Amino acid sequence: MSDDSLDARHRARMQRKKAVVDQKIEAAQTERGVLLVLTGNGKGKSSSAFGMVARALGHGMRVGVVQYIKGRYATGEEHFFRGIAGVRYHVMGEGYTWETQDRERDIRAARAAWDVTLEMLRDPGYELVVLDELNIALKHRYLDVDEVVAALTARPPMQHVVVTGRAAPPALIEAADTVTEMMVVKHAFQAGIKAQKGVEL
Amino acid sequence: MSDDSLDARHRARMQRKKAVVDQKIEAAQTERGVLLVLTGNGKGKSSSAFGMVARALGHGMRVGVVQYIKGRYATGEEHFFRGIAGVRYHVMGEGYTWETQDRERDIRAARAAWDVTLEMLRDPGYELVVLDELNIALKHRYLDVDEVVAALTARPPMQHVVVTGRAAPPALIEAADTVTEMMVVKHAFQAGIKAQKGVEL
Repeated sequence: MSDDSLDARHRARMQRKKAVVDQKIEAAQTERGVLLVLTGNGKGKSSSAFGMVARALGHGMRVGVVQYIKGRYATGEEHFFRGIAGVRYHVMGEGYTWETQDRERDIRAARAAWDVTLEMLRDPGYELVVLDELNIALKHRYLDVDEVVAALTARPPMQHVVVTGRAAPPALIEAADTVTEMMVVKHAFQAGIKAQKGVEL
Repeated sequence: MSDDSLDARHRARMQRKKAVVDQKIEAAQTERGVLLVLTGNGKGKSSSAFGMVARALGHGMRVGVVQYIKGRYATGEEHFFRGIAGVRYHVMGEGYTWETQDRERDIRAARAAWDVTLEMLRDPGYELVVLDELNIALKHRYLDVDEVVAALTARPPMQHVVVTGRAAPPALIEAADTVTEMMVVKHAFQAGIKAQKGVEL
């Protein structure tokens, strides 16, 4: 195919695409806070939530972050966002649950993190709330899913919430506006490459 | 089931899980830069890349960002990271391609962005390089996929690169260490909710 013909086809395709996009944007006019769930086994769930924190801060929004499960290492995102104005940052205190192996202690830590979460979910001053790895706390039944969904549903109407973690429960998916499942196509870990700073940590 | 029995089962499961995780961490000891591809139609690809930027900055790393396709709006991530020390930020200048509808102009803009990318991919001082929406530029053949893969493969050994965008080409997936496909389970846009600041923008 000649370059001219390629260009003409491209232009026609892009015009059709623009018409479709414009129409969708025209149709989607509701402004309100969204509940976004990032789940699945693939890499990128928590980092995506933290990218949204950066985005929100770029718009001058106030942000709350609660990390439900913390790694052995201090994470880069914690280092970074703790130092930034406009962010309240809470980390559940106990390390990975397979480090503590004490269910009662995990439940206490999760409930304390949930109390902080409830403060944020009742305060319209938080325009974005990130509940990182909350799905793990739900999966282990440290928290009650109905109680969590009820609090999310009752939050201020303009507040955005992002929940991350594999195995999101059906009731949470039902309540959410946007749900992404992240699938592993391949992972460096499988090839013997350890978790890397700035990527996983 | 009694609480005691639930606790005991939990402890046993967590001990097995810890053993598996410890073994995998033991086995995965290679330290090197990874090439990570975030693709699929689901929400979270670019935000995930920007979360990794935050992570990397939290570890004091130097970061390069090239955004291949820019929205009509100034994005939150651009506002935010342009103001942060340690980040070089370049945005391809032309807006959405379905706004310009001029293939030659898009190709020139993509090549200029690729020249900036090449500088980063040749400089070990950049410890993380984010090529946001590069897959779109490849999909439209603004850039040659073989040239791109060759440059990525020849980059400094400790440099991490994150490439985002739907429809990653097979050659790029083949070259990557970690690939996540983000699948739409549902999207607020489908329910008539417009793109929200801090979430999409």
